[in-house]
Amino acid sequence: MTALSPEAFVERLRQEGAQRYHDHHPFHQAMHAGRLTRKQLQEWVRNRYYYQSRIPIKDALIVAKSEDPAFRRMWLRRIRDQDGEQGGEGGLEKWLRLAEGAGLPRAAVARFDGVLPAVRFACDAYVDLVRSRSLLEAVASSLTEFFAPDLMSRRIDAWEQHYPWIDGASLAYFRSRVTRAKLDADDAIGFVTAMATTRETQDQAIAALIRKTEVLWALLDALQLAYPLDAIP
Amino acid sequence: MTALSPEAFVERLRQEGAQRYHDHHPFHQAMHAGRLTRKQLQEWVRNRYYYQSRIPIKDALIVAKSEDPAFRRMWLRRIRDQDGEQGGEGGLEKWLRLAEGAGLPRAAVARFDGVLPAVRFACDAYVDLVRSRSLLEAVASSLTEFFAPDLMSRRIDAWEQHYPWIDGASLAYFRSRVTRAKLDADDAIGFVTAMATTRETQDQAIAALIRKTEVLWALLDALQLAYPLDAIP
Repeated sequence: MTALSPEAFVERLRQEGAQRYHDHHPFHQAMHAGRLTRKQLQEWVRNRYYYQSRIPIKDALIVAKSEDPAFRRMWLRRIRDQDGEQGGEGGLEKWLRLAEGAGLPRAAVARFDGVLPAVRFACDAYVDLVRSRSLLEAVASSLTEFFAPDLMSRRIDAWEQHYPWIDGASLAYFRSRVTRAKLDADDAIGFVTAMATTRETQDQAIAALIRKTEVLWALLDALQLAYPLDAIP
Repeated sequence: MTALSPEAFVERLRQEGAQRYHDHHPFHQAMHAGRLTRKQLQEWVRNRYYYQSRIPIKDALIVAKSEDPAFRRMWLRRIRDQDGEQGGEGGLEKWLRLAEGAGLPRAAVARFDGVLPAVRFACDAYVDLVRSRSLLEAVASSLTEFFAPDLMSRRIDAWEQHYPWIDGASLAYFRSRVTRAKLDADDAIGFVTAMATTRETQDQAIAALIRKTEVLWALLDALQLAYPLDAIP
């Protein structure tokens, strides 16, 4: 099998990612359609924080895999974005404010109280993938960010419309990701297309992205099982 | 065995580290006494660059071990110090300029040409220690920095006196470490004393520091074997 052209490779990544992206999941569709109960939305915020908390860890593992100071410098920005330049800043802090805005006790969310076992397993599997695979696969697994900016924009609109009990200021995390995820995805796609120049490595990158979509999907499966949609209260 | 007081624990770390620190190594003593040939000094610079190149990698592994954004923020600064905020900056860049100042071709040093196998083994063992051990042990292994500021000051004086053929501007790496290593060591000792509150964890921290001194020592052993001191040319 000959290597795909860079354009065809990027198109394959987009297709494989888009068709499996978690915006198709029933729980996610219910969220954006305004059909989640307050409890269900809270539990999504709470469980998703465990995923968020794994991001700087997996990004540090990616930094540790690179021999190139320029790549490390680029990727380090992601950790700085999540952890902030000082206390009280950064993506994790914004997510905890989202949790507060959704009526959850901040300390309990920060301690991962009530995180479902299957959510932990899926998120930990993501960290393990990044730890154990090649730098190329680890970076390719981040390419779900391709789809994030559009999703974040739609989410802000949907939440403001359907869940007005959440203070609009607490949606700052989603707002910050609209532009940030675009830049991050551009960095990552540039690296992946430059490194995956054989069909074998291109297939590895595609497989890693698919595995990542499975992680995000499994997170929502766990929520839907624990907090069924349209249940009679 | 009861836990040592914080003061006694720090004193033990200092003692165990100081007596094994590589400034006692014959090759290092010859370096500071002006007894290295040009070739020997060049090979020290060249081989030591492999050690330097492992630093941001092991520091990223340390960041990945922490669940605390405040700790990660603190430790990330070390990676930023080595890799720089942009191209042409940072500790690794300064070391490559040192290599050029010592008359070595920059590209060959950056490619690790001529790095001795035993130097690779020792430095890779350091990265493995950090990867496989607890966060406490990984941080404790950095505590050789206790002794670095004083050593860097003495090194600048010794090199300016004994090796005037090296441009003084290329000693910028050593100069930058005088103040930086002090701050880094203070951060690390604060963390280690806060975390190691049982005799068992204190002993683990001490063992990790000793292992690290063995890494630095082995690097110089390899150089001395390959480039014997006081050999008849």
